[in-house]
Amino acid sequence: MLRTHTCGQLSEKLEGETVTLCGWVDSYRDHGGGLFVDLRDRYGITQVVFNPPDSTSEVIEASKSLRAEYVIRVTGKVAPRPEGMANKRLATGAIELRATTLELLNKCLTPPVSPSSDEAPGEDLRLKYRYLDLRRAEMQKTMLLRAALIKDMRDYFAEHDFVDVETPILGRSTPEGARDYLVPSRVHRNMFYALPQSPQLYKQILMIAGYDRYIQVARCFRDEDLRADRQPEFTQLDAEMSFVDSNDVMGIIDGLIAGLAKKHLGIEVATPLPRMTYDEAMERYGHDAPDLRFGMEIVDCTDLAAEAEFRVFHSVATSGGRVRAINAKKGTEQYSRRGIDGLTEFVGEYGAKGLAWFRVEEDGSLNSTIAKNFTPELLKRIGERLNAEPGDLLLFVADSFAVTCKALYALRSKIAREMKLYEPGQMNFSWVVEFPMFERDEEEARWQAMHHPFTAPRDQDLELLDTDPGNCRAKAYDLVVNGYEAGGGTIRIHDNKIQSKVFSLLGIDEETAKDRFGFLLDALQYGAPPHGGIALGIDRCVMLFAQLENIRDCIAFPKTQKATDLMTEAPGEVDAKQLRELAIKLVE
Amino acid sequence: MLRTHTCGQLSEKLEGETVTLCGWVDSYRDHGGGLFVDLRDRYGITQVVFNPPDSTSEVIEASKSLRAEYVIRVTGKVAPRPEGMANKRLATGAIELRATTLELLNKCLTPPVSPSSDEAPGEDLRLKYRYLDLRRAEMQKTMLLRAALIKDMRDYFAEHDFVDVETPILGRSTPEGARDYLVPSRVHRNMFYALPQSPQLYKQILMIAGYDRYIQVARCFRDEDLRADRQPEFTQLDAEMSFVDSNDVMGIIDGLIAGLAKKHLGIEVATPLPRMTYDEAMERYGHDAPDLRFGMEIVDCTDLAAEAEFRVFHSVATSGGRVRAINAKKGTEQYSRRGIDGLTEFVGEYGAKGLAWFRVEEDGSLNSTIAKNFTPELLKRIGERLNAEPGDLLLFVADSFAVTCKALYALRSKIAREMKLYEPGQMNFSWVVEFPMFERDEEEARWQAMHHPFTAPRDQDLELLDTDPGNCRAKAYDLVVNGYEAGGGTIRIHDNKIQSKVFSLLGIDEETAKDRFGFLLDALQYGAPPHGGIALGIDRCVMLFAQLENIRDCIAFPKTQKATDLMTEAPGEVDAKQLRELAIKLVE
Repeated sequence: MLRTHTCGQLSEKLEGETVTLCGWVDSYRDHGGGLFVDLRDRYGITQVVFNPPDSTSEVIEASKSLRAEYVIRVTGKVAPRPEGMANKRLATGAIELRATTLELLNKCLTPPVSPSSDEAPGEDLRLKYRYLDLRRAEMQKTMLLRAALIKDMRDYFAEHDFVDVETPILGRSTPEGARDYLVPSRVHRNMFYALPQSPQLYKQILMIAGYDRYIQVARCFRDEDLRADRQPEFTQLDAEMSFVDSNDVMGIIDGLIAGLAKKHLGIEVATPLPRMTYDEAMERYGHDAPDLRFGMEIVDCTDLAAEAEFRVFHSVATSGGRVRAINAKKGTEQYSRRGIDGLTEFVGEYGAKGLAWFRVEEDGSLNSTIAKNFTPELLKRIGERLNAEPGDLLLFVADSFAVTCKALYALRSKIAREMKLYEPGQMNFSWVVEFPMFERDEEEARWQAMHHPFTAPRDQDLELLDTDPGNCRAKAYDLVVNGYEAGGGTIRIHDNKIQSKVFSLLGIDEETAKDRFGFLLDALQYGAPPHGGIALGIDRCVMLFAQLENIRDCIAFPKTQKATDLMTEAPGEVDAKQLRELAIKLVE
Repeated sequence: MLRTHTCGQLSEKLEGETVTLCGWVDSYRDHGGGLFVDLRDRYGITQVVFNPPDSTSEVIEASKSLRAEYVIRVTGKVAPRPEGMANKRLATGAIELRATTLELLNKCLTPPVSPSSDEAPGEDLRLKYRYLDLRRAEMQKTMLLRAALIKDMRDYFAEHDFVDVETPILGRSTPEGARDYLVPSRVHRNMFYALPQSPQLYKQILMIAGYDRYIQVARCFRDEDLRADRQPEFTQLDAEMSFVDSNDVMGIIDGLIAGLAKKHLGIEVATPLPRMTYDEAMERYGHDAPDLRFGMEIVDCTDLAAEAEFRVFHSVATSGGRVRAINAKKGTEQYSRRGIDGLTEFVGEYGAKGLAWFRVEEDGSLNSTIAKNFTPELLKRIGERLNAEPGDLLLFVADSFAVTCKALYALRSKIAREMKLYEPGQMNFSWVVEFPMFERDEEEARWQAMHHPFTAPRDQDLELLDTDPGNCRAKAYDLVVNGYEAGGGTIRIHDNKIQSKVFSLLGIDEETAKDRFGFLLDALQYGAPPHGGIALGIDRCVMLFAQLENIRDCIAFPKTQKATDLMTEAPGEVDAKQLRELAIKLVE
């Protein structure tokens, strides 16, 4: 190699040795007689000194033409830094390299994105000059963390007998689910491959093929309009197991999470991770991915509201609606009357028609503009129900169950953020289980699969498929981290009659099912074992572990929200010849 | 889990314990009173006995309905097999499971591909019912070997500080090279992504971004007409390093290969692996991927041929052509006169106009129908040149250098196979280095890159770019295994002026270069380090390590030579709505 050591390797132990380093000029300071250069590579920074007597005047002269991000090769002697000049924040801070030779390997134009600055410029510039942005210490740290997390995941699954199997990227379009990316076939005119939204069917096939335990770090694709945390292509940790129930799959992931959290976050996570049902999550947190870093659970007050004279409470509570509340402990200090107006406006965005509130006074009484519509006794019971203490702020939404969930979930998150109810590095992992099998699509007047059409119902709910699909619960489990769904899985249907029944409930007729999933229905008749699995979103896991807020900062070459790669300028135009070969025409 | 143990786990140590197994009925034998079932999973086979007194009559009755590939769950007691009934070929062969309960988990239709038979049916049937085919012991062994090889590769590179970075699948079309698979963009009308033929440009960008050492097990795509060993998508081990020369990259791979060969083949491979230049490989073996499992090197006899009266030899040798030969040691026994006629016909397929031959008689003299055209003294010198001994068969092709290479390379391979000059499990690894930078495309009257347009010329050949590109040699190296190119790499150009010059030699004008590779040319100006790398074909490596002959047997879900997935029936038709959204029309 062109170097003998990396820029993160030299220490006092090597004092007096002649070594060669290669790297980038991170910074340089001209001290009259010579130059100090901080030389950087992936492994660290070493101070290089161009000074007599070690450096000849030619070398010193040459060093003066160095600029930021020039690539150089330097040979010199390792020497302790002068008394009092050691830099304890640097692994190599006790030494410096006294240069005897200097070779300029490459120059650098003035970089539009400075790798050595802590300040990152606008994201478009960072994405266009990604090679400069990726030099920044923060990006390198994230990319190394990502590689380490994935490596540890693979190691963990290998230790547990999972086989890594690669499944195809050029697959079959199955319009159920999100929109597919399509690839026209040249050999088969007018036919298309589709890029996989997940390896779901292949991993089920692998279980039917007897592989028992499968793992893959799989690239998946969805041609959807992008939100801040979505990418057209994303990476998931995809696993599947045979002869298991939900607990077995969750148990495997529990062990994975505990190991990763300990190693990469220094956090001891108790296993099994806490589990709650979907119904419980909706009741207590208003959402199927509850943020458990803080309390402030939703409390139902519908029964009490029914007794109130307050018209809104009474009418909602007595007509099938719900009146639910959260207690922002010590919230009166944070939220003035004007602050509460802001919260009212905020829940309005989530469909709530209003936000009722009480401030808990020093004497424990509930104070509000609406207090006069409640008997003192009822106020007391409301206070007790919500564990009200002086200084607390009680916030109520009265509406349909769905609206109370949405509004109070959002409100709870907002208040926790504003009142700093959790530490920056805090991480809470949990499971939400037993999701409904189906959601009603009122517009299309049909059932939709809450997870996907291959999810098994709970054994005790099998009959409900015929009698009451809406109440049928699934063998489904989502891994929740800090209010994010970090992954999800289900036990799959291994009985082809149940699979057919579920397809039919979903409005997929026999012919369509055969056309799209015929091979799966066939395979289920050739000795399919009970099986289930899970997929974790790796991009999001990296984001959570690195404590970042933008998924694009966790991906080496992400696309913008318009699905563009600003560096390569993909997508681009193609030649007429290419289109001719594929037998397709553009519609202008 | 539904089981307490796997079917490969039980031994005499567990004698007397009650355990539960799950698996597939591999075979069953009714012995009157009860049934013997070989129960199979990924881990092994266990004999299950349904017999009184352990099994009740209900369980025995139920067991009689079992058929091949039924999925069952059995609980029973581990017991030693009766005296003399142990099966030493089976890990669990000392014991049997005496069943007390039986649960049928799933049935199986009569399988069109039998997982328990050694005989595989036609490949189309195997691909259609891949879930059955993948149950076969041979396929499971290969898939497990594949997973293990890839795991070991990743571990090796991680130990050597390589960072695993995922590069995009939705990229930019760069028509240079093979044909791209295209993906129409919905958001950007009339624009297309392309699936990557390799992560070449991204890995160079990662070096420019300072990642120093990169590794990825990358999916690559080429829309080419398929040969037996080509797939539309394939997997390559992709690596890149900064501040290196060719020897550093080869050295890293040497260590990898030695480790894999030792662990998976039990072979000690001496490193560094043998290296020869491209020119030497063409001289000695007629091919840039020589098979070194056997000798029989090509020997040049042009000087001797020039002295012969034999018209064909003389005219070729004196007009710029070459007369080259191989010595098939002891070949006279294998090849009769008729056999030699067959060889003559064979080399004809490679463009040779004939095959001259001599049999070496017991007395050492050379005997042939053409012998009379040679003086005895010349025959003696020819014999000496080829190290002729009694029983040898000397075979000559007189033609252009290119034709002698092609014909003798093919002939050498054929004879070695027919004369069994190597052992079935033999593996020979070597490097071929210093390839020409360019090949002349006579039809289009321009230079083509022998590797790719980013390959660096040898330092001493830089001037030849201007004066004699055809003689310019590259910093290129191919890993050769048993006559296959298992991988290849180059040191890349890190100087944007040289890169521009190479583009221009390849007929890529400035505008086109900027359009297609502008970001790379830019990046080369922002502090690009010297760097180089390699890619190994993982499918082919698995094929070689598993001693298989068909690349499709090394891939879980391969496509046919018509690029069809027979199981999922991809590619398929898509909805009009999908095409409308993508603004494309089919040409009928």
